[in-house]
Amino acid sequence: MYYDILVNQNSKMLHNLSLILAKAETFATAKKVDMDVLLNSRLAPDMFPLGRQIQIACDTAKLGAARVAGKEAPKHEDNEKTLPEFKARIESVIGYLNTFKADDFKGAKETKVTQPRWEGKWMTGHDYFIQHVTPNIGFHVTTAYAILRHNGVEIGKKDYLGDMPYQK
Amino acid sequence: MYYDILVNQNSKMLHNLSLILAKAETFATAKKVDMDVLLNSRLAPDMFPLGRQIQIACDTAKLGAARVAGKEAPKHEDNEKTLPEFKARIESVIGYLNTFKADDFKGAKETKVTQPRWEGKWMTGHDYFIQHVTPNIGFHVTTAYAILRHNGVEIGKKDYLGDMPYQK
Repeated sequence: MYYDILVNQNSKMLHNLSLILAKAETFATAKKVDMDVLLNSRLAPDMFPLGRQIQIACDTAKLGAARVAGKEAPKHEDNEKTLPEFKARIESVIGYLNTFKADDFKGAKETKVTQPRWEGKWMTGHDYFIQHVTPNIGFHVTTAYAILRHNGVEIGKKDYLGDMPYQK
Repeated sequence: MYYDILVNQNSKMLHNLSLILAKAETFATAKKVDMDVLLNSRLAPDMFPLGRQIQIACDTAKLGAARVAGKEAPKHEDNEKTLPEFKARIESVIGYLNTFKADDFKGAKETKVTQPRWEGKWMTGHDYFIQHVTPNIGFHVTTAYAILRHNGVEIGKKDYLGDMPYQK
């Protein structure tokens, strides 16, 4: 189950985000608007703009898999400026997620996850997965979506959810 | 794991949404704005307003647990107009989620989930849980949050994520 969400579903959400950004680019071209305008758009003055939402969505997925597996994640410098750079960041994280195997997460209930800003506190990999990673990636991908939607980009919830595994 | 997310985490997300709405009410009172203005606010003309986002978040949680467990969910009429009514809707769904036991979800990988608009197609309870319920509740709670944030309500991501299960 950890693998199904931390690898498969989170890769899917990042992939969907990349497709949404491609639609934003088509929109910007048609409107003769620089893509930078969208990448720097935000919903409130003290909320992060689109570009930063993409970076945090990427970090949520990357650190989610790494920390629950008790591994060290590769660093990203957060220096993306252009759409191709943001898309490359997404691809890089999807590539990283695909290096995990289901067995990597088998210690999730014992693994202690912490980070400097928690000042010595920690939580289990399992709790971190359920109460932090899963809601957080939804938060940042949805906020990216909402910024674009608010700016008029023609996307719908199907773009966010992506293809469904229907059977007949 | 199904229980941890479909019952515990989804209840938590709805509870956090209720606390966010209480902050929106405080904001509306301070600004001498009718709460209806916020409940009818949206981020784009063809996106659902706050009130409808709350209803869909509730339905996502309710139908998520019911369908994965192969049960019939209670009906809600979607006739809420006032904040107390929306908060009661949330409480009603949290109460319903709390009627489930972990064992109710044990057939998730075999359960066939369908609905009229899928025109005869179906997916397993497991796939529905991972690819539909989990991203979808994040989508609607985040969109509700984003509508309020865009209107100036003083909330932050901690309100969305809620208390974290830190240990020392």
